[in-house]
Amino acid sequence: MIIDCHGHYTTAPKELMAFREAQLARFADTSKPDAVLAEISDDAIRESVENNQLKAQRERGADLTIFSPRAAGMAHHEGDEATSNAWARACNDLIHRVVTLFPDNFIGVCQLPQSPGVPIANSIAELERCVSELGFVGCNLNPDPSGGNWQGPPLIDKAWYPFFEKMVELDVPAMIHVSSSCNPNFHATGAHYINADTTAFMQFIQGDLFKDFPELRLVIPHGGGAVPYHWGRYRGLADMLKRPPLVEHVMKNVFFDTCVYHQPGIDLLFRVIDVDNILFASEMFGAVRGIDPETGQYFDDTKRYVDALDIPADDKRKVFELNARRVYTRLDKALEAKGK
Amino acid sequence: MIIDCHGHYTTAPKELMAFREAQLARFADTSKPDAVLAEISDDAIRESVENNQLKAQRERGADLTIFSPRAAGMAHHEGDEATSNAWARACNDLIHRVVTLFPDNFIGVCQLPQSPGVPIANSIAELERCVSELGFVGCNLNPDPSGGNWQGPPLIDKAWYPFFEKMVELDVPAMIHVSSSCNPNFHATGAHYINADTTAFMQFIQGDLFKDFPELRLVIPHGGGAVPYHWGRYRGLADMLKRPPLVEHVMKNVFFDTCVYHQPGIDLLFRVIDVDNILFASEMFGAVRGIDPETGQYFDDTKRYVDALDIPADDKRKVFELNARRVYTRLDKALEAKGK
Repeated sequence: MIIDCHGHYTTAPKELMAFREAQLARFADTSKPDAVLAEISDDAIRESVENNQLKAQRERGADLTIFSPRAAGMAHHEGDEATSNAWARACNDLIHRVVTLFPDNFIGVCQLPQSPGVPIANSIAELERCVSELGFVGCNLNPDPSGGNWQGPPLIDKAWYPFFEKMVELDVPAMIHVSSSCNPNFHATGAHYINADTTAFMQFIQGDLFKDFPELRLVIPHGGGAVPYHWGRYRGLADMLKRPPLVEHVMKNVFFDTCVYHQPGIDLLFRVIDVDNILFASEMFGAVRGIDPETGQYFDDTKRYVDALDIPADDKRKVFELNARRVYTRLDKALEAKGK
Repeated sequence: MIIDCHGHYTTAPKELMAFREAQLARFADTSKPDAVLAEISDDAIRESVENNQLKAQRERGADLTIFSPRAAGMAHHEGDEATSNAWARACNDLIHRVVTLFPDNFIGVCQLPQSPGVPIANSIAELERCVSELGFVGCNLNPDPSGGNWQGPPLIDKAWYPFFEKMVELDVPAMIHVSSSCNPNFHATGAHYINADTTAFMQFIQGDLFKDFPELRLVIPHGGGAVPYHWGRYRGLADMLKRPPLVEHVMKNVFFDTCVYHQPGIDLLFRVIDVDNILFASEMFGAVRGIDPETGQYFDDTKRYVDALDIPADDKRKVFELNARRVYTRLDKALEAKGK
């Protein structure tokens, strides 16, 4: 079985974005009408994934995608807490409908109603709703709800702890995933995403988050940002900062996905990071949708790169399935209940 | 000949930091006395490098270090423009004294008196002084003088153009190098440095800087941040953004150094980046000073990693010497004048 742990609903019916636009228009000008999400038919939802994610799953050979709302769409820096609440609910409900229509192909991960300066505890209710009522198996946690201005506290700050407590209680992991950038220095998918991955990892080195939450599981996407390429730097920095070795201090709780869009990058990832810490993912259709002229294949068809690795079949099975089931324990239970 | 293009004077005599502390104390409280740099003897300068950078040069087998003030010390976000001016002059003058004492081992690159919100044109005078009067061959340009808050314009903004014009006129390159971080999200050497490298590269993809300045030469340190590891992502993003291929659009003007502190990272760098774009560097003594327990060697002894590469001797000579002479043309002229 092949599980892609990182897929976003980037092809949602246009009614969703119309709702968002109306919502932000209303926020900017309260004389405008309340935003209402127009009815979206099951057929429209089927169509939105059948020729996109489902087709690619079939063609590329994946079975199940851990599916969440569009990351760039979260835009927690827009509007206020009420805006983010209504937006997260709408996006998550739509994910739930996709999962309900295609229960063998998708399982849900939720967007959170984060908002700059608002306590992360206020996101707990939506996490609980998605996990307990909608059967979601995790969440995307934005380490910078200010959208590239990095105005909140680092992830190791106690301000985040109420949310981590709830994650442990619900036994769900988070993917650390920023959204769009309103800072002109940072291109969203070209700089902000990768920087956030690198930043989060370094924060974990600095702090004691996993001493306080030994059960917490966090996925850093995009192959861990810059971290595997600079693995020697991070091992050396941990040493200089008198932190324990990374394998003990961070890597019992942190996992990298395989959203690295060329063979040399994937080769490096597997050369330096323990196979138990790597989860297969493609983030399709996401940041990079074209065909690589050097290979004639889609950049984000990451299964090809993993297939090409000269590693034992057991290791591939960990990356393609078992690690995801170990990190997303509720996914494992859902699959077991289906006899998978 | 082996040229290390990235060394900072991290071992400067304590009088320099005492001056800085007095300077910032005076800035915070104008009732305090003006800062005065205490006299530093030639012997103190000799001592500060003989058992440090010079010893390591000898032991590791490098000949010449392109030497600049401590990067984390620049701290352009502290004080104001006058503070930065006095501080840059003091730091650059000390580099000049090192170079004067050890002309075969060091050549200077200058710190700039940048300050948040102050036009970069105001840094031109110090660049000219260092190049024309002190014989420096380049500068360190901070893409974020706000110290991790990224409040200024991106490098492709016309606001930076007066400085780039002067660089071209003087025929000197810049290393894009941030300083310390006052944003608690970003550890300086573990996140801010690497993020800045990645960010700058993505800005160059977005803009047309090198169409406007075909002669401009910029070095992105720390192995290009996350870029080589995500080379497929950047090639794909350039394609999605309808930019020319990276080899034409960016890589005629941008160079990566070899400050990547483990063999797999260096292997990747050379696998994906053209050898003409790679300059040998170690940034000693900088971010990571310890010994790698996995190899028994210093993390930042990057020459070992390059030596271990299975590439033609001609390519190694490019990386160790010829590329640096091509990028730092004034260094080349200085060496030629010595018959080297």
